Amino acid sequence: MNYSIIRYMLGLVSFLTGICMLLPLFIAVLYRENEGTAYLLCSSFCIILGLLLTLRKPNNTSFFAREGFFVVALSWVLISLVGAMPFFVSGEFNSYTDALFEIVSGFTTTGASVCNDVEALSHSTLMWRSFSHWIGGMGVLVFLIALLPSTGGQTLYFMKAESPGPSVGKQVPRMQNTAKLLYIIFAALTFAEFVFLAFGDMNIFDALCASFATAGTGGFGNYGDSMGSFSTYTQVVITVFMMLFGINFNFYFLLIYKRSKEAFKIEEVKWYLSIYAIVVALITLNITRLGGNLLTNLRDAAFQSASVMTTTGFCTVNFDNWPTFSKSLMILLMIIGACAGSTGGGIKVSRIMIYLKSVKKELQHLVHPQHIKVLSFEHKPLPHDVLRSANIFLIAYCSIFIVSFIIVSLDNFDGTTTFTAVLATLNNIGPGLAKVGPVENFDKFSDLSKFVFMFDMLAGRLEIFPMLVLISPAAWARRKS
Amino acid sequence: MNYSIIRYMLGLVSFLTGICMLLPLFIAVLYRENEGTAYLLCSSFCIILGLLLTLRKPNNTSFFAREGFFVVALSWVLISLVGAMPFFVSGEFNSYTDALFEIVSGFTTTGASVCNDVEALSHSTLMWRSFSHWIGGMGVLVFLIALLPSTGGQTLYFMKAESPGPSVGKQVPRMQNTAKLLYIIFAALTFAEFVFLAFGDMNIFDALCASFATAGTGGFGNYGDSMGSFSTYTQVVITVFMMLFGINFNFYFLLIYKRSKEAFKIEEVKWYLSIYAIVVALITLNITRLGGNLLTNLRDAAFQSASVMTTTGFCTVNFDNWPTFSKSLMILLMIIGACAGSTGGGIKVSRIMIYLKSVKKELQHLVHPQHIKVLSFEHKPLPHDVLRSANIFLIAYCSIFIVSFIIVSLDNFDGTTTFTAVLATLNNIGPGLAKVGPVENFDKFSDLSKFVFMFDMLAGRLEIFPMLVLISPAAWARRKS
Repeated sequence: MNYSIIRYMLGLVSFLTGICMLLPLFIAVLYRENEGTAYLLCSSFCIILGLLLTLRKPNNTSFFAREGFFVVALSWVLISLVGAMPFFVSGEFNSYTDALFEIVSGFTTTGASVCNDVEALSHSTLMWRSFSHWIGGMGVLVFLIALLPSTGGQTLYFMKAESPGPSVGKQVPRMQNTAKLLYIIFAALTFAEFVFLAFGDMNIFDALCASFATAGTGGFGNYGDSMGSFSTYTQVVITVFMMLFGINFNFYFLLIYKRSKEAFKIEEVKWYLSIYAIVVALITLNITRLGGNLLTNLRDAAFQSASVMTTTGFCTVNFDNWPTFSKSLMILLMIIGACAGSTGGGIKVSRIMIYLKSVKKELQHLVHPQHIKVLSFEHKPLPHDVLRSANIFLIAYCSIFIVSFIIVSLDNFDGTTTFTAVLATLNNIGPGLAKVGPVENFDKFSDLSKFVFMFDMLAGRLEIFPMLVLISPAAWARRKS
Repeated sequence: MNYSIIRYMLGLVSFLTGICMLLPLFIAVLYRENEGTAYLLCSSFCIILGLLLTLRKPNNTSFFAREGFFVVALSWVLISLVGAMPFFVSGEFNSYTDALFEIVSGFTTTGASVCNDVEALSHSTLMWRSFSHWIGGMGVLVFLIALLPSTGGQTLYFMKAESPGPSVGKQVPRMQNTAKLLYIIFAALTFAEFVFLAFGDMNIFDALCASFATAGTGGFGNYGDSMGSFSTYTQVVITVFMMLFGINFNFYFLLIYKRSKEAFKIEEVKWYLSIYAIVVALITLNITRLGGNLLTNLRDAAFQSASVMTTTGFCTVNFDNWPTFSKSLMILLMIIGACAGSTGGGIKVSRIMIYLKSVKKELQHLVHPQHIKVLSFEHKPLPHDVLRSANIFLIAYCSIFIVSFIIVSLDNFDGTTTFTAVLATLNNIGPGLAKVGPVENFDKFSDLSKFVFMFDMLAGRLEIFPMLVLISPAAWARRKS
């Protein structure tokens, strides 16, 4: 293993985290909050640690798959370990474990909280929570486009292949340009949401936090009732932007390159919007049977479905009170998740498409064995490797789910709580149902469960494999030559 | 489509069902029960229908995959439709839907009941319920070994390939001999259990019913508390035989052919017993923390784990009262199920092995891309087709699960009830948790849900694909030539 390059890259991550902490520090100064001291200390620590680690250039820049996976997994672990420090140092969280849970939830854009009273938190901490979603969303985009291809790993190949339409590389010759363009889109959309929200009943601070959280499909809110007390205008704006951030970013690429015809032909985007529309319609009908105004119910169903499908996790109503049918549909959306190539989590619409198409093809094959049909995806034949990766992803996903479920069940909560708590963390959503419902939080779990959730959040965010590699004995073993 | 051969084979199925009904008819005569009339009428009807359908030999005996799947699926539908008649005609069930649910549950060896008072049923009906498990178990064995290979379908190939160790064909040259030997093993084990049980505190009738139900890994009991009121001796005998019927039947083949060394090398059997042992130990420890005698708890844990893992579904205790951790382990066993090549249901131990091994191989591949490792299964390289089938099975299984879950949730029961009701039917177990727990039944669901459960029971029993082919438009479409 090339330890020097790992050391160097972790140093960079620490340095950048320190720089990012300057934003909450600035907020603390602005609002004259004592918590500023914590952010100043921690920011300095991160920057100094980063400088020390990067002082010596790596003596060997060769970089293999193994190093790639380690760097990715360890970067997210490191950023969480140092990112949690100000929460703990400022005394706003009871223990370092809680602080760590909160920041892992932030960086992985999950939005599950252990905080019993969000409204008592300082502005600087609220900003750091929301900003961590944005940093995490950025990180996922790096992961998607920039970092993975250079490691030569398989996951990235899957990701690349999963990006529908013409491959990204064709449009912009150099990877770094692609990444830059991606950041510009991401930042521009965030800014657009901020402007729209600032025009409504949100103050500037809340609008900024909400925009960061929406962009990362995070879900930390600044109020106990999340987005419940804001106006219909604000709720609709957030609904639209949640859906926009859940779309495959290739869509925006194609739009920018004036290939809107191709953009609107992306199969995944069509499926994403269709599934969303059907579920919203069904939930609206289902909850209207219990009473209430049709339009209000439509607004609530649209908001909650968008929030859960894009794995953002904001709430306007307590959907735990909805009928079981609506709750089942919410669970379905939680599992499906957003588009691949977005900041959203979950299994991803494109994988679901691949799964359903492969079953359909198998049925045809069973009935007419001599007819050989090719599995087509995004108007092209699906490479075998992509199918294999998608299958193994499903198996790994289910395995992690079941093991987590069993460990967390030691806390002896009811089945729905345990099941949706694992689902909400592994799919980076935030709220689940029952005792982890929209008006609840994750503080009630034991430390063991909290660590399981942290692992799940990281695993879900990094498409499972980097975290599995990190804990796999094979990866740590010396290579036989 | 070759309709004449389908007609002919369905005729045979109807005829055989009529013959099988002679057993409950005999019981009715023995106990001088009025329900005998119903069995006489229905048996005559089945035999006459069978004779009419088989009067004319098929004018064309060519038989392709499509016909194979249709025959398999339709046979199970037909046997259920006619098998339910005596339940309804005798007036012991409220509606034909309920009678159908009960017999589908019987033939698919599920054991989920809609009966609120089992002890009020006549002896003839109790016998028909238990005997249906045995017929179903037989049917699965036909399906496994005899029927499928002749259809040339893929599932059978999977099944054949899944049978570990030397292929069955090598040991006994002709398929029919193999089937015969299989039936002898099945009948001999059933008889052995009957003898053991008759020596205990069970009467002859109950011992016969219990043996039929154990052999088919069914689970219908003759008493409201299932097996709860029988002696420890009886419970231990049933535990042992449940485990024996959940073992891959290749194990017995090898033993009979004096190749015990190979028999004990079957990987699936080792995994099956290891998983069982670990779960029993964990549950025993977990429930003993709540109190109770260690040995009694061990007996209960061993019985319930065997019952659930082999998908039999007998109960001695209400495991719905166990702590969540133990219940989660029960859910794990429900999902895993018994060995392939047994009468048990679920995903099957061998598929779980394939899944875990493929994830392990992927991790190794990610870390060392240049090292190409072959996935080995039962001491041989795993054919690519088997892996593909196993993957598609998982996807189809999850899809059916989710769709069923959403439809059943329209009945507005809690999440645990809905989830485990689908699990218990799709995996052919019987009881689930909460409102479908060991002391509950399935009567409370709407007719729509009951039909979903019937579909799930049949789908689970037939390894998913035949039922999917039956409802797939592609299968019904005329073949383009």
